[in-house]
Amino acid sequence: MSKSVFYHAGCPVCISAEHDIIKLIGKDNVEIVHFGEDASRIPEAENAGVKSVPALVTPTGNVLHINFGASMEDVKA
Amino acid sequence: MSKSVFYHAGCPVCISAEHDIIKLIGKDNVEIVHFGEDASRIPEAENAGVKSVPALVTPTGNVLHINFGASMEDVKA
Repeated sequence: MSKSVFYHAGCPVCISAEHDIIKLIGKDNVEIVHFGEDASRIPEAENAGVKSVPALVTPTGNVLHINFGASMEDVKA
Repeated sequence: MSKSVFYHAGCPVCISAEHDIIKLIGKDNVEIVHFGEDASRIPEAENAGVKSVPALVTPTGNVLHINFGASMEDVKA
């Protein structure tokens, strides 16, 4: 994977972090995944090691949990 | 301020996040501050809203707390 993936759930903390991340690394370098719009991506995120959102998975597969919006359990509820 | 500032305290989580951030946004776009080497920057970070490290303060002044290495209280101890 050559892009980072930013997973979020639409919470205010998530949206704020999304704007920051896009400004910092450029919108062409990051795919935005909103679980509220596409819950089918949740297992993929969990497999990548995402424990809470918002989170950024880097091209090398590292997970950066940014601030704290919601746990993955909350997202699935 | 035109650069982001990445504050950390040398913990393994911090170092890992530092490498990721530098790769993502470029080393010319971020100043790295290590509290273990320069504790005098701690008040500046707290004033910026940093609650734990590692944290990235964006050029617009937003604070992104990334993963969790140590609280600011731990850093000062």
